Amino acid sequence: MIAGAWPNAQVHALCRPLVVGQPEIVRRAVALRGVRAQVVPIDDPARAEPSAETIPCLAVGDPAAIDVPAATVDARGGQAAYDALVGAARLALAGRIDALVTAPLNKAALWLAGHHYPGHTELLAELCGVREFAMMLYLGHDATIRSPGGLGVVHVTLHTALRNVFEVLTPEAIEEKIGLVDRVMRFMKGGQPRIAVCALNPHAGESGLMGDEETRIIAPAVERARAAGFDVTGPLPTDTLMVRARDGEFDGVVAMYHDQGHIALKLLGMHRAVNVTLGLPIVRTSVAHGTAFDLAWQGRAETSSLVEAIRVAAQLAGGARSS
Amino acid sequence: MIAGAWPNAQVHALCRPLVVGQPEIVRRAVALRGVRAQVVPIDDPARAEPSAETIPCLAVGDPAAIDVPAATVDARGGQAAYDALVGAARLALAGRIDALVTAPLNKAALWLAGHHYPGHTELLAELCGVREFAMMLYLGHDATIRSPGGLGVVHVTLHTALRNVFEVLTPEAIEEKIGLVDRVMRFMKGGQPRIAVCALNPHAGESGLMGDEETRIIAPAVERARAAGFDVTGPLPTDTLMVRARDGEFDGVVAMYHDQGHIALKLLGMHRAVNVTLGLPIVRTSVAHGTAFDLAWQGRAETSSLVEAIRVAAQLAGGARSS
Repeated sequence: MIAGAWPNAQVHALCRPLVVGQPEIVRRAVALRGVRAQVVPIDDPARAEPSAETIPCLAVGDPAAIDVPAATVDARGGQAAYDALVGAARLALAGRIDALVTAPLNKAALWLAGHHYPGHTELLAELCGVREFAMMLYLGHDATIRSPGGLGVVHVTLHTALRNVFEVLTPEAIEEKIGLVDRVMRFMKGGQPRIAVCALNPHAGESGLMGDEETRIIAPAVERARAAGFDVTGPLPTDTLMVRARDGEFDGVVAMYHDQGHIALKLLGMHRAVNVTLGLPIVRTSVAHGTAFDLAWQGRAETSSLVEAIRVAAQLAGGARSS
Repeated sequence: MIAGAWPNAQVHALCRPLVVGQPEIVRRAVALRGVRAQVVPIDDPARAEPSAETIPCLAVGDPAAIDVPAATVDARGGQAAYDALVGAARLALAGRIDALVTAPLNKAALWLAGHHYPGHTELLAELCGVREFAMMLYLGHDATIRSPGGLGVVHVTLHTALRNVFEVLTPEAIEEKIGLVDRVMRFMKGGQPRIAVCALNPHAGESGLMGDEETRIIAPAVERARAAGFDVTGPLPTDTLMVRARDGEFDGVVAMYHDQGHIALKLLGMHRAVNVTLGLPIVRTSVAHGTAFDLAWQGRAETSSLVEAIRVAAQLAGGARSS
């Protein structure tokens, strides 16, 4: 996937990329995709001299992963992914790289290696010592997404069983997410973002006939956020809210649970959706799809999502530098 | 809305329509839309002689609704809607009309009139003496929906607070919905439909890490339905399932709760989605959007959804007659 995206001219116009991982595995991917680029091992990000033909690669962790057969779930693969992520995050925290873009991670392999995190995001939050964070799905402006700054959807709960959403949904958590999405979408838009907050129940509870979380939990959070100066509306019935957001009425959406945001964003742009982690002291984006082991190592992986993740990271890092 | 759709040539090519309601109110709508058609009161559906210029209207119920100001929530309006629905349903049950197509209903007005139903569907099920029924959202084949017979999404729970979904989700209810969507999509497709069943939790529970309803409730239902001969797959993570369904991999989808199906279908075709009631002894379709009182009586209501609801009803009624 990295090999497929590397020759893209946009990538090199936007940033000076380097790969953190095992050079030997990157070499295999380059050969598989038939990409004409040389993998150059480096030991310091400052020495990276990237171009469409040169892939600087900082080796981290145990090279045992080199022996893992392609596209299999193996603890050594999980450990290698863990090592690469931790290594890259430490570079970002030390200010030695400006942004971190992650490729998909196989969770089962991560767990086999003894790292029990629901995903990259929770691990990064721990590394950064951050408690208030959120995953935002982002789609840039195009013919479908009408808002000029694109559309960001942040989730109040994410890798939570639906049954447990009710316990963790609090006005404070919703208000915090309104603040997080406001901050990043203000930057992407270049102005105050218009934020919509999803209801939890059908028809936003229809005045309490079908659930009371709207009146008990969501509406108070929206009121407080509005009083604090945010341009925020809700709770709105989520089915029509998503249509209105697509059509440019909102820049940011606060979703209550995983599928609420993911069903919409995958339909609106599965191959170009970017995952932006909010609340970290470092810039981190990711492709928004999974590992697709059924397609892995066949040279067919979709690379547009990774290019878009790099574009968004560069935009956010540029802003971070200038601010 | 009816007045806006009436002159559409497709409507008259497909069926012989008549309106059940107050002729005076239909006349006002005709005048408002500037439609050149005459409203002709009738007392028997057999006497209807519809054309693009003639709207046969069977008056039912109390004419008190004539005095209700336009686009207001009023018990008299709710009562008129109730009377029209009951009148039309009785005609259908008596075999005097072949299908019933309903325009949006204001639920608050219905409740004010003392009729405490979540919507049309539950009221019709009661009138028909039916306990196994479901609402299906349907989008016909077009450039977006690739399956030739269109895509139907049926809901296991619908007008239920999300918190209460867990109590009513049973393998039996899921199996029943697989049977209902199979029957109608078999007809729309002209062959065995491919059915996908949604998971409830993020990533379909990720092997139990995020919820166990997939293994406890949904998978057993899918297994039993498959053993009974249905072409059914699942539970699948709903976000990618909906993308696959859009792209033509499935003809029918069984969703666990309201927003799961509605977020997808509204994004895929809000103005042409049709609501088909499954399990009734009569054919009934409806537009899939609400009353939009903010647009009502301004002559701007979208009519494409009503025309599509009429088209689907005519197709199902034609099949019902010939079977």
